[in-house]
Amino acid sequence: MAILTLTTDFGVRDHFVGAIKGYILSEIEHANIVDISHNVSPFNILEASYILKNAYKTFPKGSIHIIGVDSELTPVNKHVAALIDDHYFIGADNGILSFLTSEIKPEKLVEINIHDRIASVFPVLDVFINVAAHITRGGTLDVIGKPLEQLKTLKDLEPTINHQENQITGNVIYIDNYGNVVTNIPRKLFEKHRRGRNFELWARNHRFTNIHSKYSDIINFSSDVQINKDGEKLAIFNSANLIEIAIYKSNLDTVGGASSLLGLNYRDVVTLKFT
Amino acid sequence: MAILTLTTDFGVRDHFVGAIKGYILSEIEHANIVDISHNVSPFNILEASYILKNAYKTFPKGSIHIIGVDSELTPVNKHVAALIDDHYFIGADNGILSFLTSEIKPEKLVEINIHDRIASVFPVLDVFINVAAHITRGGTLDVIGKPLEQLKTLKDLEPTINHQENQITGNVIYIDNYGNVVTNIPRKLFEKHRRGRNFELWARNHRFTNIHSKYSDIINFSSDVQINKDGEKLAIFNSANLIEIAIYKSNLDTVGGASSLLGLNYRDVVTLKFT
Amino acid sequence: MAILTLTTDFGVRDHFVGAIKGYILSEIEHANIVDISHNVSPFNILEASYILKNAYKTFPKGSIHIIGVDSELTPVNKHVAALIDDHYFIGADNGILSFLTSEIKPEKLVEINIHDRIASVFPVLDVFINVAAHITRGGTLDVIGKPLEQLKTLKDLEPTINHQENQITGNVIYIDNYGNVVTNIPRKLFEKHRRGRNFELWARNHRFTNIHSKYSDIINFSSDVQINKDGEKLAIFNSANLIEIAIYKSNLDTVGGASSLLGLNYRDVVTLKFT
Repeated sequence: MAILTLTTDFGVRDHFVGAIKGYILSEIEHANIVDISHNVSPFNILEASYILKNAYKTFPKGSIHIIGVDSELTPVNKHVAALIDDHYFIGADNGILSFLTSEIKPEKLVEINIHDRIASVFPVLDVFINVAAHITRGGTLDVIGKPLEQLKTLKDLEPTINHQENQITGNVIYIDNYGNVVTNIPRKLFEKHRRGRNFELWARNHRFTNIHSKYSDIINFSSDVQINKDGEKLAIFNSANLIEIAIYKSNLDTVGGASSLLGLNYRDVVTLKFT
Repeated sequence: MAILTLTTDFGVRDHFVGAIKGYILSEIEHANIVDISHNVSPFNILEASYILKNAYKTFPKGSIHIIGVDSELTPVNKHVAALIDDHYFIGADNGILSFLTSEIKPEKLVEINIHDRIASVFPVLDVFINVAAHITRGGTLDVIGKPLEQLKTLKDLEPTINHQENQITGNVIYIDNYGNVVTNIPRKLFEKHRRGRNFELWARNHRFTNIHSKYSDIINFSSDVQINKDGEKLAIFNSANLIEIAIYKSNLDTVGGASSLLGLNYRDVVTLKFT
Repeated sequence: MAILTLTTDFGVRDHFVGAIKGYILSEIEHANIVDISHNVSPFNILEASYILKNAYKTFPKGSIHIIGVDSELTPVNKHVAALIDDHYFIGADNGILSFLTSEIKPEKLVEINIHDRIASVFPVLDVFINVAAHITRGGTLDVIGKPLEQLKTLKDLEPTINHQENQITGNVIYIDNYGNVVTNIPRKLFEKHRRGRNFELWARNHRFTNIHSKYSDIINFSSDVQINKDGEKLAIFNSANLIEIAIYKSNLDTVGGASSLLGLNYRDVVTLKFT
């Protein structure tokens, strides 16, 4: 059974997602369709990239990941198909896949050239599914595209280290369902540069001197008196192994989350100082 | 494997959708359940109709489409099952299917009469799934209902042409995830009446003299200097082949969409003048 | 084909749900994954409990229900697996399952003890799916946990009857997609204590003297003149057989629902007086 995932900014109210699934089921007999997300903010490449990066890995090798974000074909936005880390990816060459190619060299990378309809307003349906169907039938990428040297890269994804090597400067790259604020500073980078030193993590005027491994680490369960820490801020290594600034048991609709309570937004600077 | 689609106004937070899927899996062994939308605005027949019309066609022939919008059984809101365009539809006779029957004569149309529970508050579960299960077992519609001559029709769906044949008057019938505004004026109607003439498309005080085939048509890629057109308005033939008024790379949460930026709402008049 | 359902507060934008599904498909070959809800309000045990209680029953016996709400492992929030009513449930022992165990004695109940990673920030992925995979391979709960006597119970779930037995006092426990307000007063309790008496149902300053069996019961279809009752308030026994206060054909985005129009919120008191 072929596994096809969908990552789009189509939303879940309109007919777009249904139309795509219908067409997949018409073209691919044993398709197992899995929604990764249809709620990427419209045209937000960075957000789509973060979501896909953290979702694709758990799928079985050979899964086909279709990306419907900013996918209209233009002279500067080619359609591509790639085999990377034993997974197939089909989408537009707008930087979404650069998170992957920065770490892993694609086994195969082509520019799709099966566009017999020149002006499609719905390329996921008209182009990407046909490419996916071709792959599920055992077809190679060479047949539906011409070799491509490399993909476009997304800027702003990398944290920087200063010359003295006592400061890492990163950015907020994602705000999740709980309002937790994810930075682009990986645990590995932190550990590599820490070298036994103390540190301070700064986000706006908020200071953290600990980065926890679980949210509940801020609670002292051995105490006789359990103090309610709901709404308290903390820093944590999240499930994507990135530094995250969180609110314990936050809720954006009621008490707020780290984003609203601490005033942190996309691209805001986060600084890690070793002392 | 029987394909069953769901188009409802149940939302995705409550237990309704889960309960329905559980019951389908209990009653129909090899069911492939596909969500078309659960986010139809409550009781909005027109919206449900637009979504279903543009989603059902890509599904394989023989698919069963269950519609859970305004489906409580009353003397004026009968339950019906229909075979139209080789697809099965099960829902209430409240006008949702008239988009289809206005173009295609139903091969079969019955009023469902298997209601042994007289007062169900959840007819999708109690009635429609049992009808669907009957169909997947190869049963005919005659067994679960009595023949019906015709379905109720939705008003307001048709654009009008004036006597002099130099003006088409339509309405906004849908606003999508990007805030793009869809009218009920089909490309075919436009082309039939244009007869080589110039035209002006008016929506409120906004004027368009071009209807594009892709969103990026407004960008001049051959120019040395790429001008940022994000946020610019345009008219386009959308993937449903209807005239749509759009904002290039819109986002309702940030820059806004055609609906908010141009002040266009459901049922607003859109006029096409041939000159 | 193993049926696994998901009830979480992860939302549908982030990578969490996709990552879980990918891992399920990697670990369990013939998994049929069904979303019950991913839009539980963050950390809202009561809401998750209501949704799951009303969704699980329609699924085939032997289905596995994974609960991802407030699931971080702590000394006071153990991970448990249970076989109740011939369904498997996997989650944290935070009260979510007490709706079930208050009515049905678990056939089997264990505290999960396969946590080789001590500090997981994503236990649904790291723990619960492995337990589910074990169950789908025919494994018993004893292998992955140690027997547990009983589950934590949720407070506030039970309505009370006064000494004179002429008044039932309940609470709002859920507000649905239509803004309808669900109380914790079951039809059975109402019928048991009514004993042929008249009654008044009070919610804030709103009074109801009828509890209907369908929403459209408030409409007189035999009258020559159909009066528009959209927006009118009524009380009803809902599909969960609980007393619900509703607005006929409500829409939270336009006319409002019972919650907004009548000013009713979670935990608000609802009183039923027999006279």
